[in-house]
Amino acid sequence: MKNNYKELLEKYGSPLYVYEYDILMDRCQKMSDFKNYLEKNINKKVNMHYSTKANNNPAILKVIKEHGIYVDCMSPLELSINQKCGFKNYEILYVCNNITKEEMSLVNKNNILICLDSISQVETWGSINPNTEIMIRINPNTKGVGHSSSVVTSGKETKFGITEDNFSELFSICKQHNLKIIGIHQHLGSLFLNDKVNDYIAGVKAGLDIIKNDFKDIKIIDLGGGFGVPYMELEDQLDLIGVADELIAVLNPFIDSYPSVEEFKFEPGRFIPCEAGLLIGTVTALKHENNTWWIGTDIGMNELVRPSMYDAYHHVKVLTNNTEEITANVCGNICESGDVLAKKRVLIKPNIGDIIIVENAGAYGYSMASNYTGRLRPAEVMLYSDSEKLIRKRETIEYLESNIIW
Amino acid sequence: MKNNYKELLEKYGSPLYVYEYDILMDRCQKMSDFKNYLEKNINKKVNMHYSTKANNNPAILKVIKEHGIYVDCMSPLELSINQKCGFKNYEILYVCNNITKEEMSLVNKNNILICLDSISQVETWGSINPNTEIMIRINPNTKGVGHSSSVVTSGKETKFGITEDNFSELFSICKQHNLKIIGIHQHLGSLFLNDKVNDYIAGVKAGLDIIKNDFKDIKIIDLGGGFGVPYMELEDQLDLIGVADELIAVLNPFIDSYPSVEEFKFEPGRFIPCEAGLLIGTVTALKHENNTWWIGTDIGMNELVRPSMYDAYHHVKVLTNNTEEITANVCGNICESGDVLAKKRVLIKPNIGDIIIVENAGAYGYSMASNYTGRLRPAEVMLYSDSEKLIRKRETIEYLESNIIW
Repeated sequence: MKNNYKELLEKYGSPLYVYEYDILMDRCQKMSDFKNYLEKNINKKVNMHYSTKANNNPAILKVIKEHGIYVDCMSPLELSINQKCGFKNYEILYVCNNITKEEMSLVNKNNILICLDSISQVETWGSINPNTEIMIRINPNTKGVGHSSSVVTSGKETKFGITEDNFSELFSICKQHNLKIIGIHQHLGSLFLNDKVNDYIAGVKAGLDIIKNDFKDIKIIDLGGGFGVPYMELEDQLDLIGVADELIAVLNPFIDSYPSVEEFKFEPGRFIPCEAGLLIGTVTALKHENNTWWIGTDIGMNELVRPSMYDAYHHVKVLTNNTEEITANVCGNICESGDVLAKKRVLIKPNIGDIIIVENAGAYGYSMASNYTGRLRPAEVMLYSDSEKLIRKRETIEYLESNIIW
Repeated sequence: MKNNYKELLEKYGSPLYVYEYDILMDRCQKMSDFKNYLEKNINKKVNMHYSTKANNNPAILKVIKEHGIYVDCMSPLELSINQKCGFKNYEILYVCNNITKEEMSLVNKNNILICLDSISQVETWGSINPNTEIMIRINPNTKGVGHSSSVVTSGKETKFGITEDNFSELFSICKQHNLKIIGIHQHLGSLFLNDKVNDYIAGVKAGLDIIKNDFKDIKIIDLGGGFGVPYMELEDQLDLIGVADELIAVLNPFIDSYPSVEEFKFEPGRFIPCEAGLLIGTVTALKHENNTWWIGTDIGMNELVRPSMYDAYHHVKVLTNNTEEITANVCGNICESGDVLAKKRVLIKPNIGDIIIVENAGAYGYSMASNYTGRLRPAEVMLYSDSEKLIRKRETIEYLESNIIW
């Protein structure tokens, strides 16, 4: 069904999220290769935990599972979906932030390893789940990495993690509740590419130094995620084996000096589904005002909020029989000026009804979608080489009205 | 039930949107007074159309209806809710942007007046609904008003409206399809207070000049919305009668020179439900790292996106028995650094489990909410002086999983 976008939109409604199975398989394979390469070269267990928040569709999670990749999650719904997809408790990591006692009880009852990110949360956990093993998120206070300040998760500005100044308090609380810290987690931010691998490695080193200096008998070291994808045309794919080589150079000496470590974890999110995903929509208007071309579409900021929220770049393509090029802004059908998908792009001038494709929409697309201005969230479809499968139904008016008490 | 927040959270779950009926009634009354005052002083019909996108809960819409206020909407779901709330077709205005042919057919079939915002959309409408009456959204190219560049809807940077340069093409397309332009709409942006009334009035004047110069026999003039509310403590309430007086001074001479005009419309959104709404949540963590206090809560950016998206200010209060003051950032439970509700606020240092209240959450709160990181959208409750009523159920895991094809 690949490329029969017109037919897909007629069948499942416009706009529509589609995921190309082949690309998804390839990215899972790359992550699996990274894991195996690293494992072989450091002689320790390596586990990849896909970050469910990037895209929680079970069809995607099942492909991930087939590749031996585990998951992390951070809410009861994500946990429920992961369990329904067949992930075992030891394959799930609960990497959370500011959760309630009730949520902590749910995690403990399911016998899932939790990663706690503040002394306050450790204290709450300990008070209801004493004598347990936990992981701790540290903030190495390095500068972090990320595509926007909203997603840099290390350093002085972030809400995440425990810094060295507070470790003695941490240890005393752990002692009080007989909590055993078996793992240390750090995550430096979302989206680094080849040009930022040095920052990533510097952050890893800083984290390992902290572990060596301050923590004893740690078994699991979780180096987080952040593996980026090229949104811009001229960016290169992240060289995962290159990243692995840099890691090997840092991890081997660490392992020699810190014999208790048994396993390294990573939490790739975006890298796996992002490039497989396309958001396909329909051109609904074409206007020229104030010397600016505007291509109006039915893809609103409710369906893909990244451009409005982070000023994020997504490559956009028009499928049309025309040939004339224009420089245009592409916008959606939401009554808000910020509802702009793409700015000043050279595109083929479309006709009303032509198809527009937003690329790299497989991560933080559907998962951040809303019903702003009453728009229904689109269907999701998995595209195989010669067939397709609906993997989430388009919302209906009845569905959204069903929670209202009239 | 007012102020029994603890009990409400236990009953309906945390976090929770609540709306204070008394405040909602007061704001509706103020809008109704504005309408009556203006009507009396310009001797023309005045209609207020509440902008459903600010908050589409039927319980709110019904209070609005009782005050003789009409609605505008911009999607089939909003239209459906409006109709179920008993609004008649002439009480509904469809103020849309880049909509599909199918949506246009739905509007026409329901005999609802549409406001079209580009020549391209007029052409599409005319091709399927010839011989009809329409409204047109113009862009007066004045500087606009708004709390963020994302919501300024006039001027050279906006996707909205038709500018004077293109009126001759507009008229020829209308002639071709026998469309009669009976109304002109303009909207300058979202959120002006007393200090920006001058800009608003300047925009109104610019719009009226355009109508006088370029359009004949217009019956309806829609001056949009933008009526603001004070989010910051030191801001004053918008003086609506003051705005009316300024409008009267501009509208009366216009009316004398433009006798066909029969009705003025306005589209207040935020003004009506914003201050009635509170988002109530629970303190889940308290941390002090890098010389910064962080209050962790269960109110994530998925429940209220305005602070993350627009860097918008919401007043925040802690309900606690403590007395010590701290300067703190308030954040939610989403794994993203941008998930910060409030920055550097002087607040009473809370205990875990204390209640936190986000004020002015009645507009663009629930309506922009998402399920990011698998969080469930909260319940909504209307608070009366001595009782409360659940007006939208909290989402459940089952509800969100029901659209998945496993």
